[in-house]
Formats: sequence, C-alpha cells, structure tokens
Amino acid sequence: MNAPLPLPVVEPLDRSLRNTLNRLIDAKTKPPGSLGTLEVVARQMGMIQQTTQPSIRRPLMIVFAGDHGIVHEGVSPYPQAVTSQMVSNFLAGGAAINVISRVAGLELEVVNAGVATPLAPLPGLVDIPIGSGTRNFAHERAMTMNEARAALLAGAARVRHHAGLGTNVIGFGEMGIGNSSSAACLMSRLCDVPIDECVGRGTGLDNAGLARKRNVLASALAHHRQATHPLDVLATFGGFEIAMMAGAYLAAAEAKMTILVDGFIATAALVVADALEPAVREYCVFAHLSNEAGHRRMLDYFGAKPLLSLDMRLGEGTGAALALPVLRAAIACLNEMASFESAGVTSRPAR
Amino acid sequence: MNAPLPLPVVEPLDRSLRNTLNRLIDAKTKPPGSLGTLEVVARQMGMIQQTTQPSIRRPLMIVFAGDHGIVHEGVSPYPQAVTSQMVSNFLAGGAAINVISRVAGLELEVVNAGVATPLAPLPGLVDIPIGSGTRNFAHERAMTMNEARAALLAGAARVRHHAGLGTNVIGFGEMGIGNSSSAACLMSRLCDVPIDECVGRGTGLDNAGLARKRNVLASALAHHRQATHPLDVLATFGGFEIAMMAGAYLAAAEAKMTILVDGFIATAALVVADALEPAVREYCVFAHLSNEAGHRRMLDYFGAKPLLSLDMRLGEGTGAALALPVLRAAIACLNEMASFESAGVTSRPAR
Repeated sequence: MNAPLPLPVVEPLDRSLRNTLNRLIDAKTKPPGSLGTLEVVARQMGMIQQTTQPSIRRPLMIVFAGDHGIVHEGVSPYPQAVTSQMVSNFLAGGAAINVISRVAGLELEVVNAGVATPLAPLPGLVDIPIGSGTRNFAHERAMTMNEARAALLAGAARVRHHAGLGTNVIGFGEMGIGNSSSAACLMSRLCDVPIDECVGRGTGLDNAGLARKRNVLASALAHHRQATHPLDVLATFGGFEIAMMAGAYLAAAEAKMTILVDGFIATAALVVADALEPAVREYCVFAHLSNEAGHRRMLDYFGAKPLLSLDMRLGEGTGAALALPVLRAAIACLNEMASFESAGVTSRPAR
Repeated sequence: MNAPLPLPVVEPLDRSLRNTLNRLIDAKTKPPGSLGTLEVVARQMGMIQQTTQPSIRRPLMIVFAGDHGIVHEGVSPYPQAVTSQMVSNFLAGGAAINVISRVAGLELEVVNAGVATPLAPLPGLVDIPIGSGTRNFAHERAMTMNEARAALLAGAARVRHHAGLGTNVIGFGEMGIGNSSSAACLMSRLCDVPIDECVGRGTGLDNAGLARKRNVLASALAHHRQATHPLDVLATFGGFEIAMMAGAYLAAAEAKMTILVDGFIATAALVVADALEPAVREYCVFAHLSNEAGHRRMLDYFGAKPLLSLDMRLGEGTGAALALPVLRAAIACLNEMASFESAGVTSRPAR
C-alpha cells in the first residue's frame, strides 16, 4: 500500500500572474469587483494557463459509467440494468448530458468503466471496464487495490489522450445505479463526516428507503473501519467510474486544465483525488450545488462556492456542462472589455 | 392620475398546457424532478409560448441609460459624466454587457432614455431622451406625470418594435449614475420596506457615503410621503431609464415574451411594472441575485429564486444576459431528450 504509484503529479498552482491579472481586471470599465465570480474565474484560469489571455480550447465532458454491488442491499429505487440502458442512451444522444453538452459546446466521451450488464457493441463507446461492476461493500471490499490502481490509471490515460489533442477545459460526469451510496461512504470516511449527513435520496428514495440506505452504509463503514488510507478507502467503498474519475482529475490538473466539478458523486471522486494530491483542487471550478443531501457539506470541505444552484440532482456531468458558458463569459470579459483608459471613462471617485 | 393610460395590457399566463408539459418532462430519461430549475423554466416558457416545443428567437438585450438629479446630494462615488461615457462604451462594444451579450448570443440595443451630459452623435444609439436627466428628488419630483407616462410608452414602443421582428426572449439593463438611489426609494415605497433595508453601496460607496445616502433617501421619502399611487411613485423617485424599462416589461409580457430580470435596478423597475399590471411577473425569469443590498428582499417580494448567484453588482443587464444559456439548456432538454420509452430505459422503481 505504500508502494509508489505512477499516478499523475499535480504541481501547486503558479500564482505569479495573480497581481498582473488583478490589475488588468480592475482596469476594465466597471466598478472594482462588480463582476464578482466572473473575475475570480478569469483570474484562476489565467493562473492555470499562465497567461493574461486565457482561452477555452476543445472543451470536453467525459462520462464514466460503472455498476455497484451495494445495490443488492436495496439502496436504489432503480434496477441495475438502468446503468447500461443509460450508456446506450448516452451513445444515442438522448440523455440530458448529451443535450446540455451540445448546447454548451462541449464534446462528450462515454467510458465503460465497469458496467455489470453486458453492453451491446456501441459505436463511440470507450470500452475499458475494470470489471463487471464492483463487489458488494456491505460484505467485502468493492474492488482490489490492483483494480483501484488500474482504474485511476485508466482515467488518467483518457485525460492525457485529450490533453494531447489540445483540451484545456474538462468536466467529468458519471452514471452508475447505486453510486450515491459509494460516494456517501467515501465522503464520510475521507472528510470525517457522520454518515447520516452524507446520505441522500439519490435518484429518489422514499423515507423508508432512505432509512434503509443509512443503516446499510453505517454498517458497511463499521465493518470496514480499518480502511483509512485514501487508496484503501477507494478500493473498499468506491466504484470503477468513481476511481477512473479520480484518476482523471489528477491527470487534468497535471496537464494544467481548468476542471469543472459536477455534483455529489463527482465531488466525492474529487475528495479521493484531493486526498492523493491536494493541489488538484486549485485547478477546479465548482460548477453547481446539487440537491443531493451532503453536497453542500462536501463543498464546504473544499471551501468552495459553486457557480450555479439550480436544484439539480441528476449527475451525468449536467451541472458541470451548464457552467461552461459562465467560464466563456468570464474570460471574454478579461480578454475583450475596454479599459477605463482606452474607453475614456472616468475611473476615479469624484470625491 | 386616474385617467386611463394606453399602456400595454398584460394577460395572466395561460396555464392550460401545464399538465401536458409536466407529463412530457417526467417522461424524459432522468429521475423525476432531477433537472430542477431547468424543468421549471422549460415549463414556464412552454406556457408563455403556448407550445410543447418552446424556442428562443432573436434574443435581445435593451440597455436604457439615464441620469439622476439626486446625484447632487452626493449619493454616488462616480461623477454623472460616467453615464454618457458608458453609453459611448456600449456603442463601441467595450463594456461588460457587450462582451457577455456576444458570448451568450444576445443582440444588444442601447437607448438614451435621458442622459444629462450631451452625447456625441453615436451610430446605433436609439436616441429618444425624455429629458436631460431627472430633477433632484430630494427637493422636487424627479419627473412630471407626463414625463413618466411618456417614458413608459417609449419603453413599450421599443419592445413592440422588436416583437414585430420576432423576438420572444428579452432582457433589460440600465446605466445611470445614481440610479440605485432611485431604485431603493421605489422599492421602499412600493414594497413597503424600510429604506435602510433597500439602500446599498451601489457602485462602491464607503461607510460614510452609505450613511449619507441613507439619510438623503430617508429624508426624500419623508418629503414625498403623499406619493403612493404607482405612477406617482415612479414620477417622484424614478429615472427615465427605469420608467422606460417598466414600460418595456409591460410590452414584453403583452407580447408573450420570456423576460430575463437582471439585478437591483432592473428588479425595481419590475416592481413598478408589477404595481401597474401584476400579471407581468408570470412572464419573468429572475436571472440572478445581485450583491447589492436589498436585492434579495426584492426577490422575496416576488417569491423568486434567481437562476444565478455570482456575487455580481454591475447592472447593465449582465446578470440577465448570463442566464440565457440556462434557458437554452432548459428548452433543449424538453425538445431533444429521449423519453424512457423511446430510449428503452426502465422508468419504474424495481420495487
């Protein structure tokens, strides 16, 4: 477990351009600070890209799909087959993430990280499963350490591929019936938050289902109380799609991409990545606040204020994709607005 | 004051398609309700347009500019000349609203509603001023009743012009040094909120300036305590740009447009429109929460939950323009997502 892994190495964000960027932003024709979060995002992207003229190139959404043995405990109202059905829907272009990615101008890649139901041959699918769904972590580890490592590296490899093609802004989504249970346990263990504050209704549990889910996950956490090292926690409670996403975050930060962080499950994957390489969070823009209970608490863990709050709880990367237009606006203001001097506008208070 | 005005007539929103739209939305491949506000917006736009396939046609932002006599009381840190300088900046394409409108795909129109400093001839300007800035409402009414009516009708005429060209989604912005004072008094009187809860720092007052502004406005409200009818309140405390925007809201609702409501000043103008024709709010999407103190309270007055919360406090319509991509995503999900049936995805809970 202490053997070195060939995982991506994330450098701390280089803040040397911070003051220059602040001066440029403050010279624009607007009261200082009045563009709020747009200014914050433009400055962050300038620092990430090490330029005063940040850009968005080949923006990409990768959706990782995987299944979870924990569903056998009755933690989701939907049957496991929905995961593979939704993968088909992604590839046919009919899901919310397809539509929102098209509108926002994101390319979309769909990765089979480990779906349990056999998938028909699907053109466009990146078919690199680690296994046919994870094992049931109510009773045993969800995956082996080797599987966890393989998933991290596979996710990183997808991002490195796209880095080579020029992508500099990326978001990650997921599909996996049962994965809010996995995410809740990762959050509880790695963020040290009581499980009841991490568990939500997922795709729509009723009160009895929610109580059952809480009991199942509390027992699982107790059963695996020895798992505390991030990789061990990932192997114990994680999903293949979550592990691939965690590796993808690391590679995206290594490649100095701006990362759009989606909702509850995507943020839990970031918790794993962050536990391995804490600088990863400096490359992240927290796109939205999910309605899934526990997400706000996880955002607090990162000291993050999300861009959007639209009462969504779908996953798939939909919240991340919706935030791309805000990034476009933020850098366009930095790149295209006139300065007080160039526009002949009085910048100083009259008194 | 009780004479009938030829103002736009706003019909209540026709909700007859509500159930049909809900069924269509619930049939999409996602857990019920999981697209949150996107579902709300898509349903609203469907009802406004009386179709199950709402569209965004020729989206437009109109920025109304005007000056305010109240600035002679020292309520803004910027000199009045900035209003006309910013009008030039809008027409040269260098302001935040230019950049954000371009990115969001909105056409932009700039209207001189009553700027005090003479404007150089500016190609593209819609030059229909009611006067050279309003009078100082610390001492007298900002405008006459005839001026208020003329401004309402002029704003309505601009929107009717664009309705004829096919615009079905519209937002309004403003520029006017001192207009947060005007907006605060309109809010206080029409929403019955103590003035201290309506007054903010505007473009950036310090603590002493804020205290001064509060005192000035409290005295003005006391001085004009007889003004309670909406038109009289508008004439007493309003600005020409605010009055034109109020008329524009009415015409936009009359024409069954979806209206993007910007920040503090734009919402105060809506308070005026709403006091004249309460159905106008049913055509509104509240785009963002401004950082200007008092805006949240005004949104509460409308029972509104804004789409965006980005710590902005610039005006110009920037928050409204930023929300257009959310509308695009909302209707695209309704128009383009697969249904459970068409995609072969299991919709029913397994148990």
